[in-house]
Amino acid sequence: MRKPKGLLFIVGLHCALVFYGQEHPKLILTPKGVKEIRAHLGKVPFFDQYLSEVKAEVDAAMAEGVVVPVPKDVSGGYTHEQHKKNFFILQKAGALYQILEQDQYAHYVKAVLMAYAKIYNRLPLHPETRSYARGKIFWQCLNDSNWLVYVSQAYDCIYHYLSQKERQYLETELFRPFADFLSVGNPKFFNRVNNHSTWGNAAVGMIGLVMNDEELIQRALYGMKEVKIEANERDNDGGLIKEAGEAEGFFANINAPFSPDGYYTEAPYYQRYAMYPFLLFAMGLENVKPEKKIFEYKNGVLLNAVNSLVNLTDIDGAFFPINDSQKGMSYYSRELVAAVDIAYYYGNKNPELLSIAQKQRQVTLDDAGFSVAKAIKDGKAKPFVRKSIEFTDGGNGDEGGITVLHHQKDHNGLCLVSKYTAQGNSHGHYDKLSFSVHFKGEEVLQDYGSARFVNIDQKSGGTKSGVYLDENFSFAKLTIAHNTLNVDEEIHYGGVYETGSKHHPQKYFSVLSADGSQLISAKEKFAYPGVVMHRTLVMLPDPRLMQPLIIDLFRTESKENHQYDLPYHYFGQFMSSNIDCPKENILKPLGEKSGYEHLWKLAEGKSKGGTDQFTWLYNENFITLTMANEEGDKIIFTRIGANDPQFNLRNDPSLIIRRKDKGSTLFANVLEIHGTYSTVTEAPIRSTSLLKGVRVLADTKSYSAVRIDFTEGEPIHLLIANQDNNKNTKHTLETDGRIFQWKGPYLINQ
Amino acid sequence: MRKPKGLLFIVGLHCALVFYGQEHPKLILTPKGVKEIRAHLGKVPFFDQYLSEVKAEVDAAMAEGVVVPVPKDVSGGYTHEQHKKNFFILQKAGALYQILEQDQYAHYVKAVLMAYAKIYNRLPLHPETRSYARGKIFWQCLNDSNWLVYVSQAYDCIYHYLSQKERQYLETELFRPFADFLSVGNPKFFNRVNNHSTWGNAAVGMIGLVMNDEELIQRALYGMKEVKIEANERDNDGGLIKEAGEAEGFFANINAPFSPDGYYTEAPYYQRYAMYPFLLFAMGLENVKPEKKIFEYKNGVLLNAVNSLVNLTDIDGAFFPINDSQKGMSYYSRELVAAVDIAYYYGNKNPELLSIAQKQRQVTLDDAGFSVAKAIKDGKAKPFVRKSIEFTDGGNGDEGGITVLHHQKDHNGLCLVSKYTAQGNSHGHYDKLSFSVHFKGEEVLQDYGSARFVNIDQKSGGTKSGVYLDENFSFAKLTIAHNTLNVDEEIHYGGVYETGSKHHPQKYFSVLSADGSQLISAKEKFAYPGVVMHRTLVMLPDPRLMQPLIIDLFRTESKENHQYDLPYHYFGQFMSSNIDCPKENILKPLGEKSGYEHLWKLAEGKSKGGTDQFTWLYNENFITLTMANEEGDKIIFTRIGANDPQFNLRNDPSLIIRRKDKGSTLFANVLEIHGTYSTVTEAPIRSTSLLKGVRVLADTKSYSAVRIDFTEGEPIHLLIANQDNNKNTKHTLETDGRIFQWKGPYLINQ
Repeated sequence: MRKPKGLLFIVGLHCALVFYGQEHPKLILTPKGVKEIRAHLGKVPFFDQYLSEVKAEVDAAMAEGVVVPVPKDVSGGYTHEQHKKNFFILQKAGALYQILEQDQYAHYVKAVLMAYAKIYNRLPLHPETRSYARGKIFWQCLNDSNWLVYVSQAYDCIYHYLSQKERQYLETELFRPFADFLSVGNPKFFNRVNNHSTWGNAAVGMIGLVMNDEELIQRALYGMKEVKIEANERDNDGGLIKEAGEAEGFFANINAPFSPDGYYTEAPYYQRYAMYPFLLFAMGLENVKPEKKIFEYKNGVLLNAVNSLVNLTDIDGAFFPINDSQKGMSYYSRELVAAVDIAYYYGNKNPELLSIAQKQRQVTLDDAGFSVAKAIKDGKAKPFVRKSIEFTDGGNGDEGGITVLHHQKDHNGLCLVSKYTAQGNSHGHYDKLSFSVHFKGEEVLQDYGSARFVNIDQKSGGTKSGVYLDENFSFAKLTIAHNTLNVDEEIHYGGVYETGSKHHPQKYFSVLSADGSQLISAKEKFAYPGVVMHRTLVMLPDPRLMQPLIIDLFRTESKENHQYDLPYHYFGQFMSSNIDCPKENILKPLGEKSGYEHLWKLAEGKSKGGTDQFTWLYNENFITLTMANEEGDKIIFTRIGANDPQFNLRNDPSLIIRRKDKGSTLFANVLEIHGTYSTVTEAPIRSTSLLKGVRVLADTKSYSAVRIDFTEGEPIHLLIANQDNNKNTKHTLETDGRIFQWKGPYLINQ
Repeated sequence: MRKPKGLLFIVGLHCALVFYGQEHPKLILTPKGVKEIRAHLGKVPFFDQYLSEVKAEVDAAMAEGVVVPVPKDVSGGYTHEQHKKNFFILQKAGALYQILEQDQYAHYVKAVLMAYAKIYNRLPLHPETRSYARGKIFWQCLNDSNWLVYVSQAYDCIYHYLSQKERQYLETELFRPFADFLSVGNPKFFNRVNNHSTWGNAAVGMIGLVMNDEELIQRALYGMKEVKIEANERDNDGGLIKEAGEAEGFFANINAPFSPDGYYTEAPYYQRYAMYPFLLFAMGLENVKPEKKIFEYKNGVLLNAVNSLVNLTDIDGAFFPINDSQKGMSYYSRELVAAVDIAYYYGNKNPELLSIAQKQRQVTLDDAGFSVAKAIKDGKAKPFVRKSIEFTDGGNGDEGGITVLHHQKDHNGLCLVSKYTAQGNSHGHYDKLSFSVHFKGEEVLQDYGSARFVNIDQKSGGTKSGVYLDENFSFAKLTIAHNTLNVDEEIHYGGVYETGSKHHPQKYFSVLSADGSQLISAKEKFAYPGVVMHRTLVMLPDPRLMQPLIIDLFRTESKENHQYDLPYHYFGQFMSSNIDCPKENILKPLGEKSGYEHLWKLAEGKSKGGTDQFTWLYNENFITLTMANEEGDKIIFTRIGANDPQFNLRNDPSLIIRRKDKGSTLFANVLEIHGTYSTVTEAPIRSTSLLKGVRVLADTKSYSAVRIDFTEGEPIHLLIANQDNNKNTKHTLETDGRIFQWKGPYLINQ
């Protein structure tokens, strides 16, 4: 007698849900959206084209039948890849069912879900033991969460196709225990501020929305209050599980890593990965609980975040490879397809996003994706123009930041990325005040990125033996691997994560502009105790030049003397230098610690003082670094790859300016992309620098001043007030036989 | 009284010319062609588009006025570049005058020619003294010849615009003395078989055609009989001025360097440069003296040559960088634009050439270029499909050759270039039986090319201090820089040019196919006295594989024992190897001579015998070399760049298999492009080799036999008869527990 009664109760509950307008689908598709899509089938080419590609893909997978193997392998292995394929296909099959109204798709989703439900409750933990939070389907909860984020969308799409009894079975045997396993079963995974946890929160929340399970939704949004995690517990990447005083859940995961203007502290590479669950769950929330106004939360941070993602790319759409990024990740990734579509649909319908969608050649098969395809068809797309932009870092936007200066005047994509962010969690690098320069989609001055080959087993990039290579910790994360100052061959903050996480540089001032000179100036006081580092980077156009100069003034203020090493990690072929620096006959490592042991010392030259120049050829461009060196400064040419027994590092070249026994000093260097060469016409154009010299005129606690001389025409004077960034302060400096008077922290006399 | 009489005579001569149908223009444009072009203006978009670009370029140059400075600078310098610009602009302005019938273009051509005529006879030799054949306008006669080749076209176009008196003035003061200077004034330059001389011949011949000066025409075609050049005189590249028994002039220059099927012995890079004067002069001859049937000469060698040029490119159109090539030169060069148009128009109207022209986005402004643009408009273009092809080398086609195996079955452009050519004049390399592999437009196994930066002054590539870098002679030309066998760390032919020029490898057999296995087998007996080298390369498709295997059987036959080094110059990142070979802590050069001194020895591993594997990642492809090594074989990893004080060399990696104290032996290695990786999806696909092993079954004077085992399925047997390449000979070999019987030089049992 009890069973029917129970069933009856569930029926009643379901009716109530329908009564409250909780119709399905409701996560990423809505009844209204589906109606709109169906009405336009065959009329929106971009959508139709991609729909037919997806249909072909799903049909092919369905032809293989239901394949739900017993979990055994790690990523790259058979069971891992099959389960991964399953969740991608299920999500797409669900969407096809809604859009095409063809029962075979719902039938297939149902069959696969039933197969999972049949085994789920009896599944032990995955046999691979390496993770601090082992999954059941996959080796880690992170991947199980991926599964649920996707599959909850599939379930949503076929919800009404299933009988009440089938739904009850799936929810009891699969979805609720799955959600509980990811949360109450794995508090260290779930109750954390981390991109992994975001996936967990979204998984639990999304299935909660589909099941209308308010308990799961609350758990997803606000975490589990009752859980205690020891202060020093770490995950297998070495990150702390729990920072002091953190809140938990989805909102906490939005609050902590995102600055209000949308910069994600770990770097765009990781943001790209985290963005998908953030946005998908948010989309579901927006559809089911519009009263939460999730897209307006924290000043609209989620949509700001998409804006920051697309703006932290070079002209080819590749993310700037800061922190532990693997190079080559771009806005062509599937996560960015969803992000762009969602940001368009739920945001302010920015027509520039449409042109990115066109390049992506995909849209999501949902309301957002359709709106993008439709808008493109209606001719609304506008070119995406990268404008100079800056983002604060830190949950409150007060922990440094990142500034990207774009030269908008031509189409070669010259840009400068100045990084004065906070540590960036466990994925951060010890690279305060570093910068990189990009041109024609290539790195002129590079950030090494991570020493990691994601998912490649031979390089331990699969999950067999670790995610990052040893050289990530002994080189790629360290200061010498970046274009910033190394003092006494030490790492910023002593290489101590906790120290780095307590501090951050501070912006001193910046000037962003669409056509004039642009500046970003920042200071860092804690990376090396007793040494204040102050870097000002200027992108300065001049009618005499093919491209703006990049002026780099790096000043230290220190009572003690130190050895200062300022590296420039360039790419390309050595062309010429006025410094005599013949290559060594035997190569030895440059140093013994702090990453120096990974640099082969190729050559060393000694400056006679005054202007030194080094010209190289890269990607058919002639580039010169013009340096205001002091007598005795060493110019060291290195190549990465020493103490690298497994050939894990790339063998990229670098130039290091070494200044010894100095306290306060100013490095004044100018990067100049001055010419081109074509291997087809074989014509070098402007193969030599247009600069005659760079001279330090003033180097005091109060002022830095340099003069840049051209081979023709007037020199340029650049003056920086080092101690007062107030826009209205008036300054007077007598130098170079003249009296300069100006207002605000800088003067460019051009 | 005498003066008027002289003038009268000239008038009479001119009338006679017209009488014989010698109307102008007649070199690259003809009255009939011009009429056709004019009638279609505005109707052939490809032509119109390029015409408008040229018009804009010429209009801009004309706006600067007539600029004919006193010659002073070398290439890259002002006067050099201005005179170079002048000849390009004059040629185009002449064509515009004919096509657009606008007098300002003829007026401009005339004004510039007059300016040159005014100074030419008084010009001393160019002040730069480095060339063995100094010019007057430029530092070498070669560039002066460029000038005349282009300017004779311009003169032809405005011939009828000028008065008789003006023509007489130009011919007396400029063109005839110019042609005499290049020929009788510089016999070492003119009377030679060399691409420089081809320019000289064409220059003199083309102006001869325009002026109807039969003496110049004959001199151009057949050289100057009376000249004597000492046997050992050399040019500044180190090439002999005069080989014994050579004929002279244009026909001699066609005969010697071109094999009958159109391969140019110096390499496509040089052929590209030489092709322009060959074809331009030929076109003029065809128009003026059709009875010469120049395009049928020597089996149609000139048009065959264009066919060889476009077929010696990778899928991006870049020439295979054999011999002294600078990498990156391609069919996008202006010379190839002309070559493709001419080959289409004067050849068999091959519609595949039209698709190359479409990619070039240019046509020549003449009869040939118009016919290409018109054919494209008429929808005749067909995709250019690279088919496996081979070319003989040597004037008679009996001095070895080159074979290109293309895998036509997919669009990634996998191809193998097997080089068993003759020495290739002074531009040749000591690389007998070398090969390279290309995939997706990148080099999987590279040919280093030349150590040279053409026209780049910082690398002595301009004309200030020499054309090639020292490292071209100490490394790039030498055996170790190529994917072929080094015996006892010596250079092929002892590195002696004269010896190399006497010998050449011989093809043993080849099999070219559109879909099956393809083979090229060749032998070389003279590179190392007492050692016969025999290499068989196989491109072998198998349904289990993503791409065909490249099987490399390199056998030596020698009574004496030697050290054998077989390098593979790969590109990419080391992934894994079963050979234990940790990187050295200190890097030293691998050897002391023969180019070995330029290789940093990174690591050395010792084979335990049997199958060794090395996997690397390049351009998003996983690639494995599977080796049948003998116990004690050394696997040496190197990087180019030692003993390179000026940073002139690229720092590319190599793997060398070293086998010591061996006489006759067989190297059996298999290159396998087996997987892919995307930095956007981060999914490795087939990241490990599908091969389990490679085993040598037979290694005798008569037979080589290997067995290739896969991780799944049946093995492949490859058997080569080493001493009999007759297709009909029957062979029997008992090995691997079986008896193999076959006919012809090879058996693939798959």
